[in-house]
Amino acid sequence: MEMMKTLQQMGEHAAIAALTANLNAVGDDCAVLPMNEEYDLVLTSDPLIENVHFTPDASPEQIGHKAVCRVLSDFAAMGAEPQYLLINLVAPPEQNFQTLEKIYAEFSPSGPLRAGSLLEKYGVELVGGDLAQGPVLELHVFGVGRVPKGTALLRSGAQPGDFIYVTGPLGGAQKSGKQYSFEPRLEWGRALRESGKVTAMMDISDGLATDLRHILKASGVGAELESSKIPTIGKLENALYDGEDFELLFTVPSGESLPDIGTKKKAAMLWVGKITDCREELLIDGVAVRNKAFEHFKGE
Amino acid sequence: MEMMKTLQQMGEHAAIAALTANLNAVGDDCAVLPMNEEYDLVLTSDPLIENVHFTPDASPEQIGHKAVCRVLSDFAAMGAEPQYLLINLVAPPEQNFQTLEKIYAEFSPSGPLRAGSLLEKYGVELVGGDLAQGPVLELHVFGVGRVPKGTALLRSGAQPGDFIYVTGPLGGAQKSGKQYSFEPRLEWGRALRESGKVTAMMDISDGLATDLRHILKASGVGAELESSKIPTIGKLENALYDGEDFELLFTVPSGESLPDIGTKKKAAMLWVGKITDCREELLIDGVAVRNKAFEHFKGE
Repeated sequence: MEMMKTLQQMGEHAAIAALTANLNAVGDDCAVLPMNEEYDLVLTSDPLIENVHFTPDASPEQIGHKAVCRVLSDFAAMGAEPQYLLINLVAPPEQNFQTLEKIYAEFSPSGPLRAGSLLEKYGVELVGGDLAQGPVLELHVFGVGRVPKGTALLRSGAQPGDFIYVTGPLGGAQKSGKQYSFEPRLEWGRALRESGKVTAMMDISDGLATDLRHILKASGVGAELESSKIPTIGKLENALYDGEDFELLFTVPSGESLPDIGTKKKAAMLWVGKITDCREELLIDGVAVRNKAFEHFKGE
Repeated sequence: MEMMKTLQQMGEHAAIAALTANLNAVGDDCAVLPMNEEYDLVLTSDPLIENVHFTPDASPEQIGHKAVCRVLSDFAAMGAEPQYLLINLVAPPEQNFQTLEKIYAEFSPSGPLRAGSLLEKYGVELVGGDLAQGPVLELHVFGVGRVPKGTALLRSGAQPGDFIYVTGPLGGAQKSGKQYSFEPRLEWGRALRESGKVTAMMDISDGLATDLRHILKASGVGAELESSKIPTIGKLENALYDGEDFELLFTVPSGESLPDIGTKKKAAMLWVGKITDCREELLIDGVAVRNKAFEHFKGE
């Protein structure tokens, strides 16, 4: 029998794998489930926890933006359309109420602080949730949406020879503040799905190297990146491991032209490498790289 | 301008009211939204937080049961059918992993600890979620389901003269452990909806008096309870204010016979009083009672 272990000893990824081993978990950015003849139901959830996903000096607007846009980015990664959100808000009794009001102003169709809101911009509605007491400020955002039946873009379709693209510059999102202000790539995700040319897609939340590994594993393939082509803010390391860029990462067969989604959008679809047949091997400029991204519970 | 307030000074109900004032929030146990010609989409979420919703000595089985069944009870309260769950799990790095495995065994169709699971019993599937680091153990459960179009039972339909019923004994759920082992009244909720006779329904999570007030407010009516008829475990006070019973509370026009949902089930549908036309006034044996239930953030 195994010794008793803590989460810190297990690490986030091993813990998730062990806990969900008996579940029909899909392992994509969202769960995709049958709804009707026309659409599949698309579901996802993301926590945003003080001192973990945001620092105490983050503004209410930044907290609200990141909580919601992380979820919207999950929909973008499937080429899906978000429709409804529910938010479980957790806060200590001494929480300043005005901060919460400012966070919720981001979600309101006619909030006191601005005309039009974040949710209006993306056509999403906050329809429920709960408020409960806890030791720190947390927002748990649940998203519900849809995608035309059978068309959701998964991580599992990449083929050897496919080209690998990202939608924008990577790295330094914590330092630059992009983690609090990024645009979820919903339009891009939708256009890429409609093109019918994308074989695998996800969003980059843990860094290019870490997230690409998810595609490699799900698709049973390898990849070779060209460092000179990776659009880096800072050093190559930053693009590979910083995370929280929330750009899309996707693969397209090499013979195909880039999906036509308008000149302006097309311009930021950047070639970074290609898929190989060496199962789960990630090369950069021909050299194998090992996994070393941030993981919850580990190395802290 | 108002002074800066804390959540503790506001109280849970006032805080929720203020935060959701600009949202199209429905104020029922679940949000009900259009899905297709046949069904409405039903969404809800509930947090379960250590030291708030469960004590540190609760077993993993109890934690898993309460987390999931609170959400299922919300579906029962609408007469709706739950289909999918997502769970955000929060835990500190020093969390014993075996406890989490035992909690998740409750959710697995072929878990290591038992043949069949809680979710299998209720026909619900865990399809996603997330695992993140935080100061205490928390489960945020998000539920997705459906109800035949336009048939969801709301809090807003009670009419003067309607009879008020509950589905089982009330009070002492924290002391007796019922808070960890209650049966969500899904079958009852469904049968009551199908009967077409119920005018308003919700589940009892905060005590009969507190929850009945929600129906009175939503319906614009009053109520008179008969203390001798209230099925109390302990004192009357316990039934009125303890909460966490997760029985159904519903109203039926006085001329109607009880919905026919089988002898065994019908037997536990207990008459406790009737709806009056005195807006938001709650009487017990003719005497007005004031609100004094547990509220998050207040009186602690």
